[in-house]
Amino acid sequence: MRNIALTIAYDGSGFSGWQRQKYRRTVQGEIEAALLRLTGRQINIDGCSRTDAGVHALGQRASFLLDDGGIPAERLPLALNDLLASDRLEGTGDIKILEAQEMPLDFHARYSAKGKRYIYRIFNAAERSPFRRTRFYQIEPELDIAAMHEAASHITGTHDFKCFETSSGTPRESTVRTVFALDITESTATGELCERAAARGDRNEAESEGRIISLSIEGDGFLYNMVRIITGTLVEVGLHKRQPSDTALIIESLDRSRAGHTAPPQGLYLYEIFY
Amino acid sequence: MRNIALTIAYDGSGFSGWQRQKYRRTVQGEIEAALLRLTGRQINIDGCSRTDAGVHALGQRASFLLDDGGIPAERLPLALNDLLASDRLEGTGDIKILEAQEMPLDFHARYSAKGKRYIYRIFNAAERSPFRRTRFYQIEPELDIAAMHEAASHITGTHDFKCFETSSGTPRESTVRTVFALDITESTATGELCERAAARGDRNEAESEGRIISLSIEGDGFLYNMVRIITGTLVEVGLHKRQPSDTALIIESLDRSRAGHTAPPQGLYLYEIFY
Repeated sequence: MRNIALTIAYDGSGFSGWQRQKYRRTVQGEIEAALLRLTGRQINIDGCSRTDAGVHALGQRASFLLDDGGIPAERLPLALNDLLASDRLEGTGDIKILEAQEMPLDFHARYSAKGKRYIYRIFNAAERSPFRRTRFYQIEPELDIAAMHEAASHITGTHDFKCFETSSGTPRESTVRTVFALDITESTATGELCERAAARGDRNEAESEGRIISLSIEGDGFLYNMVRIITGTLVEVGLHKRQPSDTALIIESLDRSRAGHTAPPQGLYLYEIFY
Repeated sequence: MRNIALTIAYDGSGFSGWQRQKYRRTVQGEIEAALLRLTGRQINIDGCSRTDAGVHALGQRASFLLDDGGIPAERLPLALNDLLASDRLEGTGDIKILEAQEMPLDFHARYSAKGKRYIYRIFNAAERSPFRRTRFYQIEPELDIAAMHEAASHITGTHDFKCFETSSGTPRESTVRTVFALDITESTATGELCERAAARGDRNEAESEGRIISLSIEGDGFLYNMVRIITGTLVEVGLHKRQPSDTALIIESLDRSRAGHTAPPQGLYLYEIFY
């Protein structure tokens, strides 16, 4: 018996999330279908994070047991990627297996994880664009980044983050988590075509107009929708709908209704998992 | 009776092309459905270019007659964009009406056009990425841009471009067209997340690795698949599968089988239409 760990990237826009569902296209379902075709075995893979519909991953991890001595782990990515891309657009695929490694039998993609890093991406531009809708949260008014930085400073550390959780209804042991780091950075996108420049007949400014604001958040674990609710709260600070210092009070309140909106899924990227 | 011209951008990845089809989601079909909800009238819109499934537009044009004095043209974009985005991801839409103008009654988006400009985008990187699959033709080996430039120089001007047409079977009056300009430019994409950098745990080089090669081609008209076949031919030159000077011989031959492959739809952008 071998224990195989996969590192996986996917564009979440074409999936009803990670977790296998009957009659819906999911990341887990697609990878298990490819494994079935490759090995002839019904294999259950355990993903580290059950990402929601529309959420992307650059470094998702999943593990599974294989009672097959046949295929060396290092040859799995190529074989699986071929199968995964076979019914898609010419030579492309929205899931990519980046790596496969043989691990000790006690390794488990979810239970062995020590922490995770997510990136949430906002496109802050005067106008929304059809070309960014599945990859960014598009916000038109200019965000006050300095205020967002100040608000974010209250979030790092160990806290009961109940206020930033969409409750599942089922009671859970603890809502205390540690956020190791929360960074907000600003950059410009180049290499994107801009429909406004095209409409002006502008051939030299064919680049996108606007800035990318990226939130990078690293912690030992995250509650359901935690990153998206933190983002929604920080966005409201950036729009001057809230004070930066409100963040501390919201956390103290343990009250979901005090926090901001849940930012949409398409801006969220599962970036990296730590073991 | 008013004659309205729309300027339209769309991400083609979710459409079975421009032209209305029963039971399939098309750009024309979606805009006509929005116009029906807005005006209560079944309106037929004429697009300038019937883009194929997967092909994008930044500056598509369409015109239609409206026997309704009610809505000023300048208010149509907002009203239509609201309707077009209503069933999509939160607050987003894959079609955007950029502009609506009232035109003289003899204006027609297709018949009045004097020329068009397309951009074809290649992502030339050591590895394909799930995040670029609907917006670029991804090519792994390094392309020789100088050779592609040389090959492109034989294409500008007035020629019988029969070799660069996917024949529709129905005879057509003429396959002579004039290409005013064919430019190839190279740029770097920034602001894209890179799954390989994430997999390495690299937090500073989280940008995409690779270069964008853009072909910009402007002409008085284009045969079916002409831009995609020209691109496929130039790519084969860039891969050293053909000589740059072959292009002249291919054009002279009038023979489709002498030209290169048809590059995939997702790299093609209808950029601008000239009147």
